[in-house]
Amino acid sequence: MTEVPDAWYNPLPDLGFALPPDLPPPRRGPRLELNVPAALVRQEMSRRRWLPIPDEVRRRYGQWRPTPLRRAHEFERMLGTRCRIYCKYEGGNLSGSHKLNTAVAQAYYYRRAGAARLTVGTGAGQWGTAVAAACAMFGLGCRVYMVRSSYLDKPYRRTIMELLGAAVVPSPSAETESGRRAAGGAAEPGGSLSIALAEAVEAAAEPGVHFCAGSGETYSLLHQTVIGLEARAQLEDLGDPPDVLVASLGGGSNLGGLALPFLGAMLRGGRPVRCVSVEPTACPKLTRGRYAYDFTEASGRGPLQKMYTLGHGFAPPAIHAGGLRYHGTAKLISALYHRRLIEAVAHPQRAVFETAVAFAAAEGVLPAPESAHAVHGAAVEARRADAEGRSCCILVGVSGHGLLDLAAYQAYRDDTMLDATASDERIAEALAGLPEQPPEADTA
Amino acid sequence: MTEVPDAWYNPLPDLGFALPPDLPPPRRGPRLELNVPAALVRQEMSRRRWLPIPDEVRRRYGQWRPTPLRRAHEFERMLGTRCRIYCKYEGGNLSGSHKLNTAVAQAYYYRRAGAARLTVGTGAGQWGTAVAAACAMFGLGCRVYMVRSSYLDKPYRRTIMELLGAAVVPSPSAETESGRRAAGGAAEPGGSLSIALAEAVEAAAEPGVHFCAGSGETYSLLHQTVIGLEARAQLEDLGDPPDVLVASLGGGSNLGGLALPFLGAMLRGGRPVRCVSVEPTACPKLTRGRYAYDFTEASGRGPLQKMYTLGHGFAPPAIHAGGLRYHGTAKLISALYHRRLIEAVAHPQRAVFETAVAFAAAEGVLPAPESAHAVHGAAVEARRADAEGRSCCILVGVSGHGLLDLAAYQAYRDDTMLDATASDERIAEALAGLPEQPPEADTA
Repeated sequence: MTEVPDAWYNPLPDLGFALPPDLPPPRRGPRLELNVPAALVRQEMSRRRWLPIPDEVRRRYGQWRPTPLRRAHEFERMLGTRCRIYCKYEGGNLSGSHKLNTAVAQAYYYRRAGAARLTVGTGAGQWGTAVAAACAMFGLGCRVYMVRSSYLDKPYRRTIMELLGAAVVPSPSAETESGRRAAGGAAEPGGSLSIALAEAVEAAAEPGVHFCAGSGETYSLLHQTVIGLEARAQLEDLGDPPDVLVASLGGGSNLGGLALPFLGAMLRGGRPVRCVSVEPTACPKLTRGRYAYDFTEASGRGPLQKMYTLGHGFAPPAIHAGGLRYHGTAKLISALYHRRLIEAVAHPQRAVFETAVAFAAAEGVLPAPESAHAVHGAAVEARRADAEGRSCCILVGVSGHGLLDLAAYQAYRDDTMLDATASDERIAEALAGLPEQPPEADTA
Repeated sequence: MTEVPDAWYNPLPDLGFALPPDLPPPRRGPRLELNVPAALVRQEMSRRRWLPIPDEVRRRYGQWRPTPLRRAHEFERMLGTRCRIYCKYEGGNLSGSHKLNTAVAQAYYYRRAGAARLTVGTGAGQWGTAVAAACAMFGLGCRVYMVRSSYLDKPYRRTIMELLGAAVVPSPSAETESGRRAAGGAAEPGGSLSIALAEAVEAAAEPGVHFCAGSGETYSLLHQTVIGLEARAQLEDLGDPPDVLVASLGGGSNLGGLALPFLGAMLRGGRPVRCVSVEPTACPKLTRGRYAYDFTEASGRGPLQKMYTLGHGFAPPAIHAGGLRYHGTAKLISALYHRRLIEAVAHPQRAVFETAVAFAAAEGVLPAPESAHAVHGAAVEARRADAEGRSCCILVGVSGHGLLDLAAYQAYRDDTMLDATASDERIAEALAGLPEQPPEADTA
């Protein structure tokens, strides 16, 4: 029987290459100082393969982990495939997604570093819910700046965060300079994630208050490896190791969490495995972006990271998978893609929902719109294998449930959903806004 | 490791007494004919202790069973109790509650009996969602008559049912005689469960269309015993058998499903266990009702069952736990209560939600308003044991999740929630409307 892992997996010792270093922002002026706890920075720099999970964090993981891995027999039958499809499901916790895996770890380290309250910016609300839940666990205060349009459209997300004791503030707000400036400009009355993030950063200026950066940092990917570690053990118990993994790509923590333990085992001489990243055609950073130094957010005051990006100014068309609308990619995932250790595909929204609805009826699990991309990607893989006369074992990361995204499913049913593929012009324009590439860009 | 049971448990051989027989309706005129499949009737009449679960049903159970049983360490810590509290969680399937356990079995038997489509009446939507999911599994059509006020207030419940392929009709509708009559009268423009049921019954007049009765029938309780059977095995694995079980009472299938396997073992000479039923003070059928022959629904055309009831004309005050607003009690649960094999308590709504919010933050599981009654009941049991200097093992049935009931939690937060206790006058009036008790009423 699979147990909750007692250590996170760090792939760096197995990779055989170093990640391109972050670079200071090219612009003069005050820099973004996030005061990330030293323990998290050390994890990111570590050369040790296994990073012990603190007892208190592991005990919390035990509230919902190990998460189920189940074979999708009925989905296979519906597809008429000869492939075996297994789903690793991360939606069974109160935050509803994989993000709680790192939120719990981050809240633990922030509290140990003396924080009394965390601030966070959130778009659709997944990251905000996860941090609110983690803060409730460790007795930390939590202040969530939520993009105003989501705050109004998704009142139940807000209810959950408030039930967990968090204060939820619609952004732009009158509380911060960034909020007042944005509201005054009225360019985006509904708000945007970068405004919400700027407000959360500003609100963390008081002593004891820390901004909790998000789910795209490398330490966050390491925390997520509990997903892949459990899945490996579960498939080993079943005697059916995977030929291909499929996961959706937002910032990279979901994909990384599932894939890194399998990739690491392969790099250490183990079984070969293909890792397929699925992104929406509305935000195709791996399939149509550039590997370049870029900002992780829009302020221009943070460091530059080498990543696959559509440009930090890229505004993706509106789609229901809000978590996949990020312009960039975690640097670790970017480096793996650059070295062809992972593959990437992009799918349009309607095809994704069509598969997700069929999957829900067949398997009794309603995937989040983000996770639906992975489910669709798995169906495409299965059909291709069938066409080529191969049978294979496919592992899908179902990163969250869609019970708070039913408006999206209703739009699909009402046939008011667009495919919203990013145009060549919009991508070219955003890529033209990339910062001048520093000479270090060539070292990777 | 616990497996999905291969047989349902039937307590009748262990009870040592027979249930009072159903009686024909006293009124003349056409009777309600439900054409329940013979296999289900046979289960209800069976004297065999174990009823094999058909392979096809058991395979479906495998999509979400065995369900998790987890110790609520943080909830215990929060209560400061010396008791151990375990939660058996049934909310992890697409229908979101335990009701899918019997819906799957019923859909299987109806299809085997030649049904092409099932009709069903639903109030808050849980039973409708479960039957819609089960019909999707077995390729049956499904037509759900949903109380109009819920149809309008809970659009996401409707979305899920439609995603599963069901047609959802707001009731009263213009489709049926019952619906037209009710709409014409305009006494209840928002509809009621009894009107929705009457519409569903009428819509089942066509060949191949069957009305799927609901979750309060005895066969439904038997199907739900998978919950208690798994929980027994899981606690046995942990070496910590329960001293007390706590479950909420709607019709009785949730309570029965959890309690019957434990009660049966006790009656066969095993370990003594207390079973506590928790009902809302808005609908206190065990604590303030009468053990009498009554109708299970309002038409007056169905059989009379001996049950604890507030009278079939009882209209409970509005509370958010819609599933606990039923006037009666399954006859098996009623007989057990009559013979003091189970206990009953009633709790008011606000105290229930206060505990549920604390439980959610502590354990990362948001209980449905119905299930919240059980969680609160467990907290009360733990505090009492502490006050008496006892430590005990408490098993709580958490029958469903509250992610589609967040409006109720928001009302609690906004302090607009009332306790809505049923008044003496309202209960006395409804009890006065009980049918004349037949002489057979004394045999039980």
